[in-house]
Amino acid sequence: MSVLTAVTVIPSVMQAIDYAEPGGPEVLVAGEMPVPVPGQGELLVRVAAAGVNRPDVIQRQGFYPPPPGAPHIPGLEIAGTVVAVGPHTDDAMIGQPVCALVAGGGYAQYCIARTDHCLTIPSGISMAQAAALPETLFTVWHNLFQRAYARDGETVLVHGGTSGIGSMAIMLGKLFDLKVIVTCGSDDKCEAALKIGAAHAINYKTHDFVEEVKKLTGGKGVEIVLDMVGGSYLPRNMACLADDGRNVTIAVQGGMTADISVLEIMRRRLTLTGSTLRPRSNSFKALLADEISREVWPLVATGELAPIIHSRYPLAHAARAHAQMESGDLIGKIVLEIG
Amino acid sequence: MSVLTAVTVIPSVMQAIDYAEPGGPEVLVAGEMPVPVPGQGELLVRVAAAGVNRPDVIQRQGFYPPPPGAPHIPGLEIAGTVVAVGPHTDDAMIGQPVCALVAGGGYAQYCIARTDHCLTIPSGISMAQAAALPETLFTVWHNLFQRAYARDGETVLVHGGTSGIGSMAIMLGKLFDLKVIVTCGSDDKCEAALKIGAAHAINYKTHDFVEEVKKLTGGKGVEIVLDMVGGSYLPRNMACLADDGRNVTIAVQGGMTADISVLEIMRRRLTLTGSTLRPRSNSFKALLADEISREVWPLVATGELAPIIHSRYPLAHAARAHAQMESGDLIGKIVLEIG
Repeated sequence: MSVLTAVTVIPSVMQAIDYAEPGGPEVLVAGEMPVPVPGQGELLVRVAAAGVNRPDVIQRQGFYPPPPGAPHIPGLEIAGTVVAVGPHTDDAMIGQPVCALVAGGGYAQYCIARTDHCLTIPSGISMAQAAALPETLFTVWHNLFQRAYARDGETVLVHGGTSGIGSMAIMLGKLFDLKVIVTCGSDDKCEAALKIGAAHAINYKTHDFVEEVKKLTGGKGVEIVLDMVGGSYLPRNMACLADDGRNVTIAVQGGMTADISVLEIMRRRLTLTGSTLRPRSNSFKALLADEISREVWPLVATGELAPIIHSRYPLAHAARAHAQMESGDLIGKIVLEIG
Repeated sequence: MSVLTAVTVIPSVMQAIDYAEPGGPEVLVAGEMPVPVPGQGELLVRVAAAGVNRPDVIQRQGFYPPPPGAPHIPGLEIAGTVVAVGPHTDDAMIGQPVCALVAGGGYAQYCIARTDHCLTIPSGISMAQAAALPETLFTVWHNLFQRAYARDGETVLVHGGTSGIGSMAIMLGKLFDLKVIVTCGSDDKCEAALKIGAAHAINYKTHDFVEEVKKLTGGKGVEIVLDMVGGSYLPRNMACLADDGRNVTIAVQGGMTADISVLEIMRRRLTLTGSTLRPRSNSFKALLADEISREVWPLVATGELAPIIHSRYPLAHAARAHAQMESGDLIGKIVLEIG
């Protein structure tokens, strides 16, 4: 048996959302599950809010199984209060409000987080706000700055400008002196993206985004594309890139393969890369959390970076949250609140 | 008129190789041409030897026209003696033996080089050897270390292991603690590549290089592919790459487009990039020359890095040199010697 250090009574069972078989939103059901037990280097968090993300939906549909060792319960980001620590683990954080990137299991009353994947919630920031930050913040920070090497004054094209990722990219870009152009699927969403801070928003249903990007950049193109589409967008993204430009793919909702010009890659020194966050090593995520705590967290504390939250649902209504995400009819994040 | 500083009498005309229309090797003919006049920051070099490179052949075929402002005369690398400098240019290098990356015009008795694109030839190194270095050294150094971020202990797959680029990649890789696997088109070439220092050589005509690379790396794959083929090789190169691997394309002899998996790029965090050297800015080439003079040139001085020279031709026989390069029947470099 593990030795836990705890200051509150921790029940042995909890309410959580899980699914027996992959399927539509309705497969998500609430039920009683054992409260997980933290191991060394881990904390047990009493969850107050959990962010809902696109990968949760794809996992539920059966296309993105949890990596080995990860909980089956969906949920990649949480905010709550630390109520226990694992064996040989510093107990200084007990009682603290934290948000964390987690390997899964966020849709629950209790969830395990690694100590070094947590960020302390600054005063004045709500649990719902804190829960809406880690997944998109870690993803955008890594891909924009560590993978695409974004530098002051560069221009970034972001597809899905009003998604959780898109809105985070707009805000982070603006705070770090990038010019962000986004694509959106409606004029309303374009307007919302401009309000969040995009320099320009292109309705891709009524305009050719390649032509628009060329116009907006005086023919030069953008230095970076943050791509959630893949497939047929890839050659079009390349056409949007300036010489030495970088395309970073973080989702392939538009197709898994692409027909591209290798000559263009070589001649214009383009870079195509991409990543997913969940399967990365614990040490990678810890280094990322550390960099974010230094570079970005002060801006969360001052309120300069606050997530756009579209809607909140009680934990038991996770299915409705997923249905809304799949409808595409939202601007920003969805958060589950846990009573 | 420019004011030149010179210590020898410089004729007004010289022998050089040029072509009236693109075509086969036979279009290259010797003739009299005016000796070029160096501008500010430039040197006039009396050429003793000029390297022959694949881009010269593609230029002669009409598929790779000289960039604006570059000489029409082929030749991207030379070795010789500085005989004059342009106006307002330090004359300390007059009389010195140098080799240089040049914008063109190497197949001639005199050629202009920028002062900051020159490297002084160490004693004991012949003009032919020195002329055989810049193009492949600058290309491989930039793509392997600055673009693919090669690190100690990593494994690199290089196609065309006995070409000028391939042999330079083997030698540089070995000197900088990389393990180099090459592909070649015959058992004889494989043997030659192993002699140059390749860790493994795969005959791509008798073996599937993807399977062989998997076997040689215990299933893990290589960290880097230095690709001169493009086209259908691109997905196969990606299959050779380990997670986080980088493919750098520096020629597309096998096709200009490729059908690739964007999912693989994202899921395994691959990077596809590439470059060509000739159109880069003068300041880029100067920085590259500076880094090479610090990092690599000491190894040329000690003889640890010496180019593989397959054959030498007198300047007037440039057509024969091109015919040999196109035959593919060579190991290492071809050099033109200028009497």
